[in-house]
Amino acid sequence: MFSKPISDLVEQFQQLPGIGPKSAQRLTYYLLRRPQEDIDQLLDSIQRIKTDLTTCTQCYNITEQNPCPICSDSQRIANSLCVVEEPLDLFAIEKTKKHTGHYHVLGGVVNPLMGVGPEELRIHELIQRIRLFFDQNYEDSFELILATNPSMEGEATAMYIRKLLQEDERVPSDRLTISRIARGLPTGGDVEYADQITLARALDGRVPF
Amino acid sequence: MFSKPISDLVEQFQQLPGIGPKSAQRLTYYLLRRPQEDIDQLLDSIQRIKTDLTTCTQCYNITEQNPCPICSDSQRIANSLCVVEEPLDLFAIEKTKKHTGHYHVLGGVVNPLMGVGPEELRIHELIQRIRLFFDQNYEDSFELILATNPSMEGEATAMYIRKLLQEDERVPSDRLTISRIARGLPTGGDVEYADQITLARALDGRVPF
Repeated sequence: MFSKPISDLVEQFQQLPGIGPKSAQRLTYYLLRRPQEDIDQLLDSIQRIKTDLTTCTQCYNITEQNPCPICSDSQRIANSLCVVEEPLDLFAIEKTKKHTGHYHVLGGVVNPLMGVGPEELRIHELIQRIRLFFDQNYEDSFELILATNPSMEGEATAMYIRKLLQEDERVPSDRLTISRIARGLPTGGDVEYADQITLARALDGRVPF
Repeated sequence: MFSKPISDLVEQFQQLPGIGPKSAQRLTYYLLRRPQEDIDQLLDSIQRIKTDLTTCTQCYNITEQNPCPICSDSQRIANSLCVVEEPLDLFAIEKTKKHTGHYHVLGGVVNPLMGVGPEELRIHELIQRIRLFFDQNYEDSFELILATNPSMEGEATAMYIRKLLQEDERVPSDRLTISRIARGLPTGGDVEYADQITLARALDGRVPF
């Protein structure tokens, strides 16, 4: 019933995450009413995320320059590395200003059901980075913060990485601290409505007050 | 904190209706992970709604051909015209298959607060179309269905159109029926939770059972 250019774009929009049929229609008709220069600006912005961006070969974050501004920042401490699933997780943690070390973006989590094995992720590269640190530093300790999502796959990936490092002969276990971001009730959350697992973890992880 | 191509696109997406900062980020990172051909297809679809579409000079719907398929369809009855605000309203009514006549897309509603007066809409063109019908048909009756939204502006616009037609000397009032889409409780709605105005209208519009 829609004319073809409209139904084509509606379909394209529907493939985007979080956009249903109604939103896709609304977006399409919104763009129809915009002047050509607005459309050109949008087209240009979409094109440029492909042409102007690359992946940092150290941390695998998406960046304009390689190495990325975080990796090339000499102010950041060298012996603290935070492991995240995706670039958006990195940005979320950067916003907290709580982590002053470096990052490592895995590019996902181990998910056998979706056919994602460890070799699809940057886990090997992570191990290499940690080995390199200990090769170059004979005395310093190193903290690895595992900040994968508190989902089943995120937990499994964190456990997998821990196991690899504990079994690695080139990684001195006495100088490596592996930590996991805390799980508990979110700020503003509600004990009454919290799910059982979250509440159990909040009790397990209780801290002196 | 984002690199410029990313923050640019996030900002562009945020200007779209119904897309907040988080969705804009998610869309941007989703596109970043798509292969170039997917991006090209999206760019092409967006471009084509501008290059391949035009406005029907009869009903003002957006269309690939002018006059549009509905206006040029000889199977549709000529003496029934449904007035809607926007093309999406037309498509919603077409989907019901309840209206077999023609359409007239106003392009909005009268909204003095937003600086939209009757002259910004296709109201003059609507009156001309109705006059033309009566000029060419000496005996037929004509039904005008006002399907603007049941909002304050939609009601005011419907009333304004009715007034113009009632005062028009070239429109024979005995052969013109003006109707308004019914207002009442939506299907699946709840008497208990219906707002006062909707419930009052549902009572006013009660039908024999």
